[in-house]
Amino acid sequence: MGSHFDILIIGAGPAGLMLSTCLARWGYTIKQIDKRPESTQRGQADAIQPRCLELLRSLDLKSEIMAHGPFKLYEISNWGQSLSDDAIHRTSTHLASPQDVRYPFVTVLAQGTIESILISSLARHSLAIDRPWTLKSFKVDRQNHSYPVTVDLEHIDGCAQETIFAKYLIGADGAKSFVRQIMGVEIEYKGVPSNVWGVIDGLVDTDFPDIRIMCNILSREGSVLLAPRENGLVRFYVHLASDKDPGWARALASTESDVKERVKTVLRPYYLNWELVDWFSIYPIRQGVTKRYSLGDRIFLVGDACHVHSKPKAAQGMNTGFLDSYNLAWKIHLVEQGFAERRVLKTYEQERRHIAQELIKFDEKYAQAFSQCSGETNRQMATLNMDRIKGEELAQLYKEALFFVSGYGVSYQPNIINWSVYHPAQSLALGQHGTGLRPGIMFLSSTVSRVTDANPVSLHHAIPENGSFKIFIFAGKPECTKASLVQLADYLAQENSFLKNFSQPRARRIRSHKRHNPHSLLFTICVIFAAKRQDIDIKRHVPGILGEYKHHIYADDRANYNNLDVNSANILAHKRAGIDESTGAVLVVRPDGYVSAIARLTENVDTAEALSEYFTSFCGRRNSYHDDDH
Amino acid sequence: MGSHFDILIIGAGPAGLMLSTCLARWGYTIKQIDKRPESTQRGQADAIQPRCLELLRSLDLKSEIMAHGPFKLYEISNWGQSLSDDAIHRTSTHLASPQDVRYPFVTVLAQGTIESILISSLARHSLAIDRPWTLKSFKVDRQNHSYPVTVDLEHIDGCAQETIFAKYLIGADGAKSFVRQIMGVEIEYKGVPSNVWGVIDGLVDTDFPDIRIMCNILSREGSVLLAPRENGLVRFYVHLASDKDPGWARALASTESDVKERVKTVLRPYYLNWELVDWFSIYPIRQGVTKRYSLGDRIFLVGDACHVHSKPKAAQGMNTGFLDSYNLAWKIHLVEQGFAERRVLKTYEQERRHIAQELIKFDEKYAQAFSQCSGETNRQMATLNMDRIKGEELAQLYKEALFFVSGYGVSYQPNIINWSVYHPAQSLALGQHGTGLRPGIMFLSSTVSRVTDANPVSLHHAIPENGSFKIFIFAGKPECTKASLVQLADYLAQENSFLKNFSQPRARRIRSHKRHNPHSLLFTICVIFAAKRQDIDIKRHVPGILGEYKHHIYADDRANYNNLDVNSANILAHKRAGIDESTGAVLVVRPDGYVSAIARLTENVDTAEALSEYFTSFCGRRNSYHDDDH
Repeated sequence: MGSHFDILIIGAGPAGLMLSTCLARWGYTIKQIDKRPESTQRGQADAIQPRCLELLRSLDLKSEIMAHGPFKLYEISNWGQSLSDDAIHRTSTHLASPQDVRYPFVTVLAQGTIESILISSLARHSLAIDRPWTLKSFKVDRQNHSYPVTVDLEHIDGCAQETIFAKYLIGADGAKSFVRQIMGVEIEYKGVPSNVWGVIDGLVDTDFPDIRIMCNILSREGSVLLAPRENGLVRFYVHLASDKDPGWARALASTESDVKERVKTVLRPYYLNWELVDWFSIYPIRQGVTKRYSLGDRIFLVGDACHVHSKPKAAQGMNTGFLDSYNLAWKIHLVEQGFAERRVLKTYEQERRHIAQELIKFDEKYAQAFSQCSGETNRQMATLNMDRIKGEELAQLYKEALFFVSGYGVSYQPNIINWSVYHPAQSLALGQHGTGLRPGIMFLSSTVSRVTDANPVSLHHAIPENGSFKIFIFAGKPECTKASLVQLADYLAQENSFLKNFSQPRARRIRSHKRHNPHSLLFTICVIFAAKRQDIDIKRHVPGILGEYKHHIYADDRANYNNLDVNSANILAHKRAGIDESTGAVLVVRPDGYVSAIARLTENVDTAEALSEYFTSFCGRRNSYHDDDH
Repeated sequence: MGSHFDILIIGAGPAGLMLSTCLARWGYTIKQIDKRPESTQRGQADAIQPRCLELLRSLDLKSEIMAHGPFKLYEISNWGQSLSDDAIHRTSTHLASPQDVRYPFVTVLAQGTIESILISSLARHSLAIDRPWTLKSFKVDRQNHSYPVTVDLEHIDGCAQETIFAKYLIGADGAKSFVRQIMGVEIEYKGVPSNVWGVIDGLVDTDFPDIRIMCNILSREGSVLLAPRENGLVRFYVHLASDKDPGWARALASTESDVKERVKTVLRPYYLNWELVDWFSIYPIRQGVTKRYSLGDRIFLVGDACHVHSKPKAAQGMNTGFLDSYNLAWKIHLVEQGFAERRVLKTYEQERRHIAQELIKFDEKYAQAFSQCSGETNRQMATLNMDRIKGEELAQLYKEALFFVSGYGVSYQPNIINWSVYHPAQSLALGQHGTGLRPGIMFLSSTVSRVTDANPVSLHHAIPENGSFKIFIFAGKPECTKASLVQLADYLAQENSFLKNFSQPRARRIRSHKRHNPHSLLFTICVIFAAKRQDIDIKRHVPGILGEYKHHIYADDRANYNNLDVNSANILAHKRAGIDESTGAVLVVRPDGYVSAIARLTENVDTAEALSEYFTSFCGRRNSYHDDDH
């Protein structure tokens, strides 16, 4: 009469695979189908932006990605023509990523390879994709609280059917999503397609000097975006026509050899010979987003199913899909663990739809400007239409564009998770408090020294991807914050603290949880001192219950590690977060790395009460796992 | 009548496996046997020093090592007792590795795991270890120039025999080497064993705060060396008795529980409970080296077969074995490729035996001092017996000790490869020329930007481990050295240049060699400019034949990569090598990373002639692969 699964995922592209990768690790039963008989073989998306690489690192998949020898893209150059000269010239060069992030480069690797890495990792959790299978219909029974979603699946050959009972149904089935159709939602395109592009992957022989640099090339002969790839391959995106062009229809019918010729022409006076073509496609640029990402709190869309972007440039399709899924995964996890109220699931659509819209704004501006082929020397991507902006301002703007594309600049609006002055938690200890941070922005990781073993650790990677909130107690100088820490530890040990409220008797007995979650799967606590590692004595400086996180006590002293004496602490992590070393502060960071609340570190109960108020606001007062022994 | 192999290796411990790993990659046929029925399972050596990790990285094995989750050791702490107090106290903390090297930590992983990684990598080159097999006898027929070594092997059960004809026989069969016995050579021990140690690997529960830091602990109850390991294991080396001790004989008979008790006692007042013991052994400290490392130029010893060290501390046994084998491997390769004269094989013994002796001097001083258990607060390892040395001097001495242990500080004496004023190449362009380098020392790598794709590259890893010399042309500012580069390129293109002399027609046709060895497997040329990457135009700045190394043109501009504008060049690589940016210099670096010659970069033929003279001195005038087409 049908099988039961926690999660049913339709589609095994990057977004669907990221979702199953997270949830399989956290112990959920998953069924995942794809209508394609095999995974992506060639072409498609091809780049992992820095934030997504950091995420894959946290999932322990980075080394497998690197083992495939991806191309690492560090710089972007711009080429144009002057009015007086037919030859193309390099007009500028810029970095491809912000430099103050963990991985300051774009990782270029075929989508098919990335999918195969995720599929192998799922196999290690005994999950195999069923293919070619397709969704026939689904219905939701709100009265059924355990498995409210009933889904009929069918083998693509019609040779088999299956009924699945699931807690959640996820549509990760791409731009033509059938889940979305049944939901009765459409992608709302921004205008009609207004540009046609060709894309071609291949091996070339050329004397063009920047063939291993990503280039925007604007010449009177057309616009080409060149992107080097793994195994010596190069991808060219070739602008073929805009809708003002009489050749529009003809452009859509362009052949591989048309596109190859166009590349040769644009690159003159450099020679370019095609040695091999690996993939070729023609597509019109369309941008759009659906009005809704979910149906109730049981059906969700991720990735291309809810937003589409023009291809050239920033690989935002795959990267946005990854981050959609990651955002949804931990929210489902918190709800299913009994930690959070179901309404936190609403924040998925609110946060990710906003991002898709921001992205389309950015993408549209960029794609349009890039398509405006002209004979003038082009200006580079992020500075388009910015003639009046000079110097400092220009650099700042460029940096923001880089941050946006890299996945770090995307920020979320206030809601029940992202604290603001309108948040129900009204404690005066919550606020921005002169730090450089605010709820909704990514917490940029710094490297600190782990006190127990002197290893340098990136704060983002200190804790494996376990779906827990991270409570970073920036404790400043131990002598300044001693009383505050004692207060906090005392309060947390009390019966009514959030730590007690959400403590989990099971977690206590699972050895693998001891290190990161000694009290609750809801959070991991880290304490970071603005002091030298050797000067920190865990027994003396980390009072009470906080001492149970002994592998998460850090010294903010890495800047000086080139100094043989390991002498003075440079407190880069404190400085970066804008936290005063004499007062400290507490950052609550969401499982996906976004800052969600900032609390003052005080010598009274305010800090602890503020944290309690914050967590209780979306978790409720007591949860089903409450530990009566404490 | 027997099989033919290029290389027959007796023993498949770390040294033997490193040798086969290199030679298998370079295309040699290898037979390797081991008398043990299976590879090392537990205990034994357990640490990879920074230089060896860099070597393993060059062999593309680092990521496999890291996938096993080794412990990374960054710091060492020292614990002692004051006269007035029974409790042990931390007296100092120091770095475990020099910080200005590529990997500034010690990688702790069981020898068995490291062996298994090397064995898997050999399997990818279709090489399997034959075991349990043993050597019965061998003889060398000097008249036979192709396969002069005849060896009889026997299965350990006596059930099978085999005769092997080989070009080289390598004894990598450990401290009790049978190859060495047949050679009639003995290890000459430095005195009788004078200390007995116990070693124990296990899981412990303790409140000792430095349980994940390497510690030297000296108390009145005895000396213990504590070393954290992978998977939460800890190793304790426990000093049991010295020969002045009446308990000497009893110490040799110590049991596991004696050693466990001793650890508990020394660590007081901290508690320590044993949860699991993984490995346990008792051994007397002995140090020694053989008089000879080779028999003629066909039989060689590597690793423990020719030198033994006391175990505690610096894991020098395995690391020295690795470096022995690597030293020998590229020399055999150059001779077998017809590039170098057979006499370069003599430098193996000269160089490596000197190192073993230096190591024993160091080791003896350290081990002895460490064994001198006393109730006084101990001073740390490298500063023993150095009461009079203060401040700056002390730091310098400590740094040297770190460099020595890490594998970077070991330096070679002058010989036919390592240029000196007594070298047959007498060109005045050869010399030290005010650089910070001299032949015989390790070339410390710097990170530079590859001009073609803007990727940061460590100069040591720029070229895969291909057995080639690296000719680093530090070209300073392009405007200052333009004429010099043109001269050099012109000369190299001439009929009598070393480049022409050692060019290899085959190499030209093998695609994989094109990138690194377009002219000859004897060398790869790299050109490093003291300029920004974007300002280097390969066509304009890299003249003639040098342009064929287009993937080895670098910009010495990395220091400024945190600067968004990629603006000013900081020339760290030039500064580190002590090379003036207005004159430049040419470094010849051996396949194993040692500087072997330094030449001035001149505007006349002197540079090229000096290089020709240098290479010809040990390679001869023309080689068998000479390309008549050029």
